[in-house]
Amino acid sequence: VVGEFALLAAIRDRLDGDGPGLPLGVDDDAAVLDVPGRVVLAVDALVDDVHVDRSISSLADLGWKAIAVNVSDLAAVGALPLAALVTLLRPSWFDVDHARELYDGMREAAQRWDCRLVGGDTVSCPTLSVSIAVAGRLVDDAVVLRRDGARPGDLVAVVGDLGLAAAGLELHQGGHADLLSAHPELSAAHRRPVALVEAAEPLVASGVTACIDVSDGLGRDLGHVARASGVAVHLDAERLPIPPGVAAAAARLGRDPLELAVGGGDDYALAVTVPPDRLEDLAAALAAVGLSARVLGEVAPGTGVTVDGRDVATAGWEHH
Amino acid sequence: VVGEFALLAAIRDRLDGDGPGLPLGVDDDAAVLDVPGRVVLAVDALVDDVHVDRSISSLADLGWKAIAVNVSDLAAVGALPLAALVTLLRPSWFDVDHARELYDGMREAAQRWDCRLVGGDTVSCPTLSVSIAVAGRLVDDAVVLRRDGARPGDLVAVVGDLGLAAAGLELHQGGHADLLSAHPELSAAHRRPVALVEAAEPLVASGVTACIDVSDGLGRDLGHVARASGVAVHLDAERLPIPPGVAAAAARLGRDPLELAVGGGDDYALAVTVPPDRLEDLAAALAAVGLSARVLGEVAPGTGVTVDGRDVATAGWEHH
Repeated sequence: VVGEFALLAAIRDRLDGDGPGLPLGVDDDAAVLDVPGRVVLAVDALVDDVHVDRSISSLADLGWKAIAVNVSDLAAVGALPLAALVTLLRPSWFDVDHARELYDGMREAAQRWDCRLVGGDTVSCPTLSVSIAVAGRLVDDAVVLRRDGARPGDLVAVVGDLGLAAAGLELHQGGHADLLSAHPELSAAHRRPVALVEAAEPLVASGVTACIDVSDGLGRDLGHVARASGVAVHLDAERLPIPPGVAAAAARLGRDPLELAVGGGDDYALAVTVPPDRLEDLAAALAAVGLSARVLGEVAPGTGVTVDGRDVATAGWEHH
Repeated sequence: VVGEFALLAAIRDRLDGDGPGLPLGVDDDAAVLDVPGRVVLAVDALVDDVHVDRSISSLADLGWKAIAVNVSDLAAVGALPLAALVTLLRPSWFDVDHARELYDGMREAAQRWDCRLVGGDTVSCPTLSVSIAVAGRLVDDAVVLRRDGARPGDLVAVVGDLGLAAAGLELHQGGHADLLSAHPELSAAHRRPVALVEAAEPLVASGVTACIDVSDGLGRDLGHVARASGVAVHLDAERLPIPPGVAAAAARLGRDPLELAVGGGDDYALAVTVPPDRLEDLAAALAAVGLSARVLGEVAPGTGVTVDGRDVATAGWEHH
């Protein structure tokens, strides 16, 4: 019980306490938020040994990633983060030092994206897991980015890099330390993914018709958009960006770089569809926050997702 | 993968889809809520074999309880449920029939308390767990019930029964089927706890100074109130209600009935502090919704929680 008190105290030290717009949170049953408009909620969990291999990722990396994947879900619907509530599922070996490291990682990510880390719960569980609920606010209360708005004639574009995280994970698993040091962006993309929070406002402002964050892999995630919208998506292989690190990893691993970029997961890029006449606006709005969109293909009548005619809608990273 | 699609389809069938005030939820990355005022968030998780023994509770019971404990957290701060988002941590043995049963239980509880069951996530995990985030709205946007408002001179009262769930669990564990059939309320209290959602409005309207839901056991939970408020709580043993089933269980188990009522957990009663001059209002407001409060003792200067002078603040059910 002394251990439990110390652990809860370590967690409490790393949470944001009472403050404007957040009268409760740390030691009470619930958190109260003053949200100016509609509130957006998302939940996601990371499980030790399923989503994260602790011989590759530290507990701080796990904490960071748990926040990042949730904040990315908010960005995908056009929302900015306000607060995160954490449920820690904690095995008996998890002690106060583990708690400090895990919550330091969460705190670091939460601060990066202006998300308050508030109360939550810790429960005993044989498997370590971090389950997070995030609340956000819409950039524009009249605009929710959905998966079902893609229309034939729209262009398909992606904001952010593809394949880095999958390449990083596979290089770690294969013990290719030399390539990991030559391309530090690969390991970083796997361990500390960057949610594209800054993209939410430009995407909302420029009239994209559908949006999804790429977590299962570009092929599968565009498959969700195609299914929800009742359309087909056709991508051109030559337009798919292959970062140099992904090309190097693919060569070493004997893989097709496209497989990492289209079938790999955990990218947290944002894939969008946009009418051609809005593309210039989108590019300008993204450039204003230091981002860019790359056009990969187009939306057409039909079903499925293809790259140069080959189906990739089911080829994404199997979702755990 | 076919199994995964069938499982997700079974879950989707049991969720509330798009509707007024909830444009997203099931197949999108996030849910959007129109909340008239401030939004209240709570999270809690139930873990198989830690919180629930499936030789006692069905998966439907687990689902019900996961919703009940979260909705109870909302009631404790003076809020009513709006929507629940579920993260299912799912082992490989968990199949589509298990999903149907679990989500049927959640759906039943959610409907009982007017809570929409919206999207969420399923992730692979060796241990079965249901992690829930609930969003609610305050009964009165100007009133948040907290743990830190108890003042010397206030009375301590409880709404709801104490000890039933602990008695039910211990009778199940000891195999006392005869007593469980003679007192079906004991098993029901453990398997299908009833959150006192209807109490939120009366508690807010009648000026209670502090409130907590009794999950760890009355002693420990009033300990949280005493610590947060900087006061002592003194209870009288003779005023503690011992339901007949709890008395019968205690006799069979060779336990002090007070130990079950004060030290047992999982009651989801609401413990409150209230100025003496507001007690009549409180009783009337609760009576209007078919509930009542029983005065157990009073708040005094000092620290700790006692029953007839004996410390019980640390004697609650060890929180898992």
